Amino acid sequence: MKKPHGIFAPIATIFDESGDLDLKRFSENVKKFSETKLSGLVVLGSNGEFTLLSYHEKVALVKAAKEAIAKDKILIAGTGCESLRETVELTNECARLGADAVLVVTPSYYKSDMTDEALERYFTFVADESTVPVMLYNMPRNTGVNMSANLVAGLSRHPNIVGIKDSSGNITQIANIIAKCPKDFAVFAGSGSFLLPTLMLGGVGGTLAVANVVPNYCVAIYDLCKNGELDRAKKLQLGLLELNAAVTTRYGIGGMKAAMEMVGFHGGSPRLPILPATNEAKREISDLVNAALKLFHEVCGKNCL
Amino acid sequence: MKKPHGIFAPIATIFDESGDLDLKRFSENVKKFSETKLSGLVVLGSNGEFTLLSYHEKVALVKAAKEAIAKDKILIAGTGCESLRETVELTNECARLGADAVLVVTPSYYKSDMTDEALERYFTFVADESTVPVMLYNMPRNTGVNMSANLVAGLSRHPNIVGIKDSSGNITQIANIIAKCPKDFAVFAGSGSFLLPTLMLGGVGGTLAVANVVPNYCVAIYDLCKNGELDRAKKLQLGLLELNAAVTTRYGIGGMKAAMEMVGFHGGSPRLPILPATNEAKREISDLVNAALKLFHEVCGKNCL
Amino acid sequence: MKKPHGIFAPIATIFDESGDLDLKRFSENVKKFSETKLSGLVVLGSNGEFTLLSYHEKVALVKAAKEAIAKDKILIAGTGCESLRETVELTNECARLGADAVLVVTPSYYKSDMTDEALERYFTFVADESTVPVMLYNMPRNTGVNMSANLVAGLSRHPNIVGIKDSSGNITQIANIIAKCPKDFAVFAGSGSFLLPTLMLGGVGGTLAVANVVPNYCVAIYDLCKNGELDRAKKLQLGLLELNAAVTTRYGIGGMKAAMEMVGFHGGSPRLPILPATNEAKREISDLVNAALKLFHEVCGKNCL
Amino acid sequence: MKKPHGIFAPIATIFDESGDLDLKRFSENVKKFSETKLSGLVVLGSNGEFTLLSYHEKVALVKAAKEAIAKDKILIAGTGCESLRETVELTNECARLGADAVLVVTPSYYKSDMTDEALERYFTFVADESTVPVMLYNMPRNTGVNMSANLVAGLSRHPNIVGIKDSSGNITQIANIIAKCPKDFAVFAGSGSFLLPTLMLGGVGGTLAVANVVPNYCVAIYDLCKNGELDRAKKLQLGLLELNAAVTTRYGIGGMKAAMEMVGFHGGSPRLPILPATNEAKREISDLVNAALKLFHEVCGKNCL
Repeated sequence: MKKPHGIFAPIATIFDESGDLDLKRFSENVKKFSETKLSGLVVLGSNGEFTLLSYHEKVALVKAAKEAIAKDKILIAGTGCESLRETVELTNECARLGADAVLVVTPSYYKSDMTDEALERYFTFVADESTVPVMLYNMPRNTGVNMSANLVAGLSRHPNIVGIKDSSGNITQIANIIAKCPKDFAVFAGSGSFLLPTLMLGGVGGTLAVANVVPNYCVAIYDLCKNGELDRAKKLQLGLLELNAAVTTRYGIGGMKAAMEMVGFHGGSPRLPILPATNEAKREISDLVNAALKLFHEVCGKNCL
Repeated sequence: MKKPHGIFAPIATIFDESGDLDLKRFSENVKKFSETKLSGLVVLGSNGEFTLLSYHEKVALVKAAKEAIAKDKILIAGTGCESLRETVELTNECARLGADAVLVVTPSYYKSDMTDEALERYFTFVADESTVPVMLYNMPRNTGVNMSANLVAGLSRHPNIVGIKDSSGNITQIANIIAKCPKDFAVFAGSGSFLLPTLMLGGVGGTLAVANVVPNYCVAIYDLCKNGELDRAKKLQLGLLELNAAVTTRYGIGGMKAAMEMVGFHGGSPRLPILPATNEAKREISDLVNAALKLFHEVCGKNCL
Repeated sequence: MKKPHGIFAPIATIFDESGDLDLKRFSENVKKFSETKLSGLVVLGSNGEFTLLSYHEKVALVKAAKEAIAKDKILIAGTGCESLRETVELTNECARLGADAVLVVTPSYYKSDMTDEALERYFTFVADESTVPVMLYNMPRNTGVNMSANLVAGLSRHPNIVGIKDSSGNITQIANIIAKCPKDFAVFAGSGSFLLPTLMLGGVGGTLAVANVVPNYCVAIYDLCKNGELDRAKKLQLGLLELNAAVTTRYGIGGMKAAMEMVGFHGGSPRLPILPATNEAKREISDLVNAALKLFHEVCGKNCL
Repeated sequence: MKKPHGIFAPIATIFDESGDLDLKRFSENVKKFSETKLSGLVVLGSNGEFTLLSYHEKVALVKAAKEAIAKDKILIAGTGCESLRETVELTNECARLGADAVLVVTPSYYKSDMTDEALERYFTFVADESTVPVMLYNMPRNTGVNMSANLVAGLSRHPNIVGIKDSSGNITQIANIIAKCPKDFAVFAGSGSFLLPTLMLGGVGGTLAVANVVPNYCVAIYDLCKNGELDRAKKLQLGLLELNAAVTTRYGIGGMKAAMEMVGFHGGSPRLPILPATNEAKREISDLVNAALKLFHEVCGKNCL
């Protein structure tokens, strides 16, 4: 795999009414995402409810995604577990099933033990063992653990660690990572709210929950930025903030799944303990989706979907 | 099971040199703990590295513990998982294997979704389904999620929720929980550093990492407090603080396992990414263990071990 | 001054309708407090809105308090400012006016500069220069700065530093401070919500916002604890939690002043930007005051006021 | 005053060896800053140690700055105090002395009282009373209080509130503020570490501690960005991160003053409790200053100073 770049959606896991995996609808989503301008998909990310899935469910989802995804799209699997040995096992099973790379979140339950030293040993071990390239995944809002720029800089020298998805939203830290890592180390924004600033500083992509809802909108920010059309990129970036917040911090995965249904994807309910969106939330999200689609049309002169 | 009370050790999981479960040494520890004055044991607690274990390993540990534990000791299994369905499944398998009760930690990866409403639904569902009594487990230092006194008060009305282990160290919150819950709801201190204050306010027990190292010392605080010998209880409480910190916040599970070896239990290394204690840490811990044993002898007029 | 002990009220500053000091009403409050069983009063504490007062107003309040307070009550002045030189100047002016001791909060605006080393130098300098004994004041909820047990232990060796008011609510830290400091170093609870646990561990007093409202109730907890009547002490402690929260964290100084009016003290409005209590808050506070007074009567067999 | 824009230095306050104001050296600095490409100066900012100054010292500094500053530079005075009345008084005294605008930080000691409602009333009152334009100042790292984008959006409608200095470093929040406020509301980066991202999103300036050390370097980022030379702007931005950290979060005002001396400004010691930089820190800062000057020469083809 070449250095990853572009916009990825960390796609939702779809459950049926009894709460079991609905692989049919999940595959239909993957096919539909394959027709967008996304560079690829992340299965088993935070927005894929990966911590709520068993090992066997995780494997089944990667297998289904690999079968349904278009040949020109990159497939990344989220394989971070609390335990090193479980992470390695899942990583190589996903690689065997055709994942092009893995995205590995920091272990987090034993927070005070997750020193830079422990994390360096952990990720080095995973990268040594993995048969596919590894992307680091920094997600302090969920994990309570942050990967410092110095830690990332050290790990970026490992030949099998190719990049990082930083969801911290700490733009100073992201700038520091870009400044300290080799040029070909891929820094991805982890949320649509700071995509453009990340790209402007030298980041090369984004893995964005909101790309589950408006994938081509997100790709347009990336393309406009690359083409130097910063004014239009900025308009789209500022116009994405409210929708992005609604499907992440404000209404979570329940909100994101509701938004997906509004634009023609399968969504459904998250697994408990995550609650589905309320009707009130859905009404607000619907307004925000429509506003984003309208702005896209204004700025880009065509339809987003 | 009657309302739980007294001192419990959340016992360490023992691994062999290749990192696999060492059930033989684990069982030997259980037998040795059975000879102490502890009221019972918690398997699969935070100090049991539960998030680093597979489902099958968890089940094997509960089975081994049940076989080795003395008849008069209570066995509690930590069965909280991120997913509701996994928690219920593990809960009832552990119950089938003989666990007297289960200790269920809050799900935590999707922190912003873990509202009081979501947690109330989660724990109510678990308690409805569980064939044994449920203890709540509040561990904000590891989870980043806190159970408010109001949430606990609501859940304490459920006939199958019998108590809480609160590891927050927030004594105002613990007092509030005691004030708002029914008299027979069991409030346990979750760390040796605030055992006596919890008991003084109406708490009835403790589940303490440091009870893996000096179980009878911890029981002595409980007994002295119950017998109104508060001055001696206070001396032991104050004298426990440094050792307690060393085997929890300061040196983590690696430190706790090192300390266990110093007093004759099996310890060994934690699973990666948790690192074992350094030699420097071990020297400090050794001094603290000896100081605690000496203080116990002074206060209680007999040996602790 | 002997080592301070007992219950102190950090009394409210009273303003007239135009927002100027109302020294007449303030003095009437001081006289009324002098008739309670409190050991003394703290002027210019957090609940005295000290950061909203000019130097001249501070001096005027200490002068007025000294004139109005009963001879057998101790008067402590809160003299901590951000700047060392201002703290020293105010300290010695208050001493000159008759304050028996000063309570010095940590400077806090330059948080990342407030290392243990900087704080040790700061408090040592203040104590060297002060003509009256110094009490440390740890108030992390307002300052964002915490005094570690090790820092306090070092400072407790200074002959002119006689104690600490710890408002952190961190009972493990309070226990550590008691364990590490000399026997005659006075550790005070900084809030009514953890008074009894602090006293049980060896603390000798409390400086409590809620003592502005129900001073004799607070003193009763202290006296019952000292006399070994722990069951009744516990009942009063648990029964104080809701009212304590209402006049501190929940409704702030506006709530505290409203509560003071309900029991016959002057209250009035805080200075902006602090807002007065809403009518809804006042109704809730009124219920909580009445419940506390009723419980006091039940437990103590007499009226609280 | 027109809408402010460009780069401002929040200039250091200079003390003599006894800790008193050194207005002579301070004025010499102001004159030297007047010869740089800065748009203006902020007196009494966080880096001016404003919380450590008396009212009279504050007034003296503004007077001295006004006399020394070049006619074409804008002078802004930091006039936020904890108390509304003190803020208003200082604001209008500074305006009388010739300050072009005031920068008003959030009150912060009574954090839990600083609701959006309280802050909205506070800033509205200040802006109503002020005879010069008001800039909001959000500095959560020091205050522990954050101004939400919604709060700022509401205040931006006030005719006398012309902008905000946001030092949060939260780029999502900064983007939201830009998106929600009128076009002519001036959003300033509050630190050199996120200057370029702020400008790219629509911000119009920066008030940067590091501009005390390398003012023309900071202005170059602004100018290159405005002229669309983003690649060179990015190089300067990434190359500023380490020096910026050294004179802010890492070594604080002591570090900043040491760095100022290295480039020919007066620096000296901060007031206690802030400590001066250690020799070790100075050596590191010296290396970072030199590296920044060298990079500037490479990128801009001329000397920075």
